[in-house]
Amino acid sequence: MNYCNQCGGPVQLRQPAGDDRPRHVCNRCGAIHYQNPKLVAGAIVEWDGKLLLCRRAIEPRYGTWTIPAGYMENGETVAECARREAREEAGADLAAMAPYALLDLPFIGQVYFIFRAGLAAPDVQPGAESLEVRFFDPAEIPWSELSFAVVRQVLRSYCADRPHGIYPFRQLAVPHEEGEGQDWQCGGHPAG
Amino acid sequence: MNYCNQCGGPVQLRQPAGDDRPRHVCNRCGAIHYQNPKLVAGAIVEWDGKLLLCRRAIEPRYGTWTIPAGYMENGETVAECARREAREEAGADLAAMAPYALLDLPFIGQVYFIFRAGLAAPDVQPGAESLEVRFFDPAEIPWSELSFAVVRQVLRSYCADRPHGIYPFRQLAVPHEEGEGQDWQCGGHPAG
Repeated sequence: MNYCNQCGGPVQLRQPAGDDRPRHVCNRCGAIHYQNPKLVAGAIVEWDGKLLLCRRAIEPRYGTWTIPAGYMENGETVAECARREAREEAGADLAAMAPYALLDLPFIGQVYFIFRAGLAAPDVQPGAESLEVRFFDPAEIPWSELSFAVVRQVLRSYCADRPHGIYPFRQLAVPHEEGEGQDWQCGGHPAG
Repeated sequence: MNYCNQCGGPVQLRQPAGDDRPRHVCNRCGAIHYQNPKLVAGAIVEWDGKLLLCRRAIEPRYGTWTIPAGYMENGETVAECARREAREEAGADLAAMAPYALLDLPFIGQVYFIFRAGLAAPDVQPGAESLEVRFFDPAEIPWSELSFAVVRQVLRSYCADRPHGIYPFRQLAVPHEEGEGQDWQCGGHPAG
């Protein structure tokens, strides 16, 4: 951040009075520009005992498999975001959503909130950001071809809970894998 | 938003190719400036059957009672944020934290994630943003003097769960009360 988005003046990193950390402060108008983590909402979608995955048609991690998920927009709820992403990426109409997991990625300033969900109907089709969408038997999940550590982590947890048929809300740690942060930072804000 | 924070050029609201909504786009360098909801983390803190509340020493809603909570910072987890806020606002050292509730405030672009927690020790003291901190018997919560609808909502839910001793993860709707959004917008980013 180099300039104030309000007045166009130059910003400087300094600690405002009463604050405990440096912020981007405008030298001209004094506006303080806070930077906060971004929320990503998504869903583990199960239909007829199988899980819905999307093969990414966008960078980062083009061609790998992921669950439908994406950045929250202003004006929507976390559940509405997960529903929109499932519709956009997989043409899927989510039903019976329940909160499932919170995953922190402090190294890239992201928080994932994941629902588990069913479908209103089994009709799915790849959206603009997906090469293909498919239902996988839990035993056939392509673990080594998943897009991100956060996806592996939450699917692992879900598959471990699944045989018991009980899904307590999970707070999961995500390992900071080599290169993962870089990928995301390069990727910026994936459309959708 | 009037100017690009990267190059200082003027920004314009328009829909980037492949996007589905208008964004602030820089006329000079082309940077797209996304705006996303902010995450607030906090905790309902119980000690010896009583709940910890803080009386706000800052606007908005100076003088009203609230639970310790505040905006997440980059580089921390949601739980770390809740712990930091409890320390800053109430001098409280949280222990035994468990996820409790998600609350959406789409009308002001905020998402609250609330833990329930105990204390490592019953020592509390008002921080710079609190006039006083006190433990309230659930029957004595000052409902009409709470700071925000979101605080009322999550405390109501907690007090309803409490007699059963079971706290399923809650996804709660928050009514958009008269003036609430304005207050928050005016309040901007409360320090802490």
